[in-house]
Amino acid sequence: MSNVIDGRFSNAERSAVYRAIFERRDVRRNFLSTPIPDHILKRVLTAAHHAGSVGFMQPWDFVVVREPTTKSAVKKLFRQANAQATTRYQGKRATLYRSLKLEGIEEAPINIGVTCSRQRGGPHVLGRSMVRDTDLYSTCCAIQNLWLSARAEGIGVGWVSILDHSALKRVLGVPKSVKVLAYLCLGYVSTFATQPELESAGWRERIPLEQLIHYESWGRRVTERKGKR
Amino acid sequence: MSNVIDGRFSNAERSAVYRAIFERRDVRRNFLSTPIPDHILKRVLTAAHHAGSVGFMQPWDFVVVREPTTKSAVKKLFRQANAQATTRYQGKRATLYRSLKLEGIEEAPINIGVTCSRQRGGPHVLGRSMVRDTDLYSTCCAIQNLWLSARAEGIGVGWVSILDHSALKRVLGVPKSVKVLAYLCLGYVSTFATQPELESAGWRERIPLEQLIHYESWGRRVTERKGKR
Repeated sequence: MSNVIDGRFSNAERSAVYRAIFERRDVRRNFLSTPIPDHILKRVLTAAHHAGSVGFMQPWDFVVVREPTTKSAVKKLFRQANAQATTRYQGKRATLYRSLKLEGIEEAPINIGVTCSRQRGGPHVLGRSMVRDTDLYSTCCAIQNLWLSARAEGIGVGWVSILDHSALKRVLGVPKSVKVLAYLCLGYVSTFATQPELESAGWRERIPLEQLIHYESWGRRVTERKGKR
Repeated sequence: MSNVIDGRFSNAERSAVYRAIFERRDVRRNFLSTPIPDHILKRVLTAAHHAGSVGFMQPWDFVVVREPTTKSAVKKLFRQANAQATTRYQGKRATLYRSLKLEGIEEAPINIGVTCSRQRGGPHVLGRSMVRDTDLYSTCCAIQNLWLSARAEGIGVGWVSILDHSALKRVLGVPKSVKVLAYLCLGYVSTFATQPELESAGWRERIPLEQLIHYESWGRRVTERKGKR
């Protein structure tokens, strides 16, 4: 039995992957009330679970929230944190900030707390000797897998970052030794915006890619390989 | 002009997204010498750049490495860090550790250092007031986009984490205020392994997904919604 597979994607397959990547949005509104069936939820969690992880540590867990009482407790945490955050802006910027919708906790049929168990895999995790936070990085890769597979399912995902994570851990009963990384809101939507909401609202612009690429060394803007390809 | 698009993916499109997710591997060997054309490299970097980011901060930069001298300097850092890491294991585990191939720095036509500029977007980044590290999390999401789009291009990506990041920053000329998050090795491969290498080598097993899902509260293993889907 072969333990390898052909690497090639058809043009159509490749386009579908790029479609998911470019059409993924941070969704905070217009969730449909259509429930997410358990087998679809399992599919997106399986996608998350198939991210790579340092030392094959698989440090993630998923706390699936569906009860209105849990959501309402998390919403309360958002309100508190956001009241504080709002004071950071002045004038027009403050008005714009207040006009933005930054979460869809109670509107989304499912919320998911994503955690990272930092002791999983014992004291010496392969590949983690130099950079201890690689377990957190792996968990973020799992989140992106979830986000993209959800997009392919027609499910919008919003990442709520304006939350006190210590308080969130108490609401979700997460043990002290485990870190909460993300709180996601999931629900079917019928359409996706073509741009990030912060871009269309004029909060901030997309940086031209060329400004973010360096060659061989930071700040070197041109590749030296003249005349090639 | 509409600023929304239809959310639906065809079955074939959805399958392609899952294919990329399930067939993505951490690749450290069997890179082909075929160069990666500039327009393909640009495509995978564009995919990375289209990850969501906290406050639309886009904190990432990409240092593209192609010169043998740069690769050889990084390889030297790997050798030093790995010599240290090897001493952590005893007996059979040490033998197994030494048999693993953990990087493909010099074999891969392109290496990419991915960084996070923690000051980008000014002192108050929207959504980052409670969890300062969300910029790092966003950068990891960008890396996963790159990884998946590369898979769809037939390009293997390996993440080398056994490196002293302070020394790596000096090699790549990355400023003090900027964090290096990942060092990736990219190259075409003709086949992809069906399992993570650490799984097939017997280093560690995949955790059954059910063990990682909790309902409403950590440790609750069953959903209460009896009789519903």
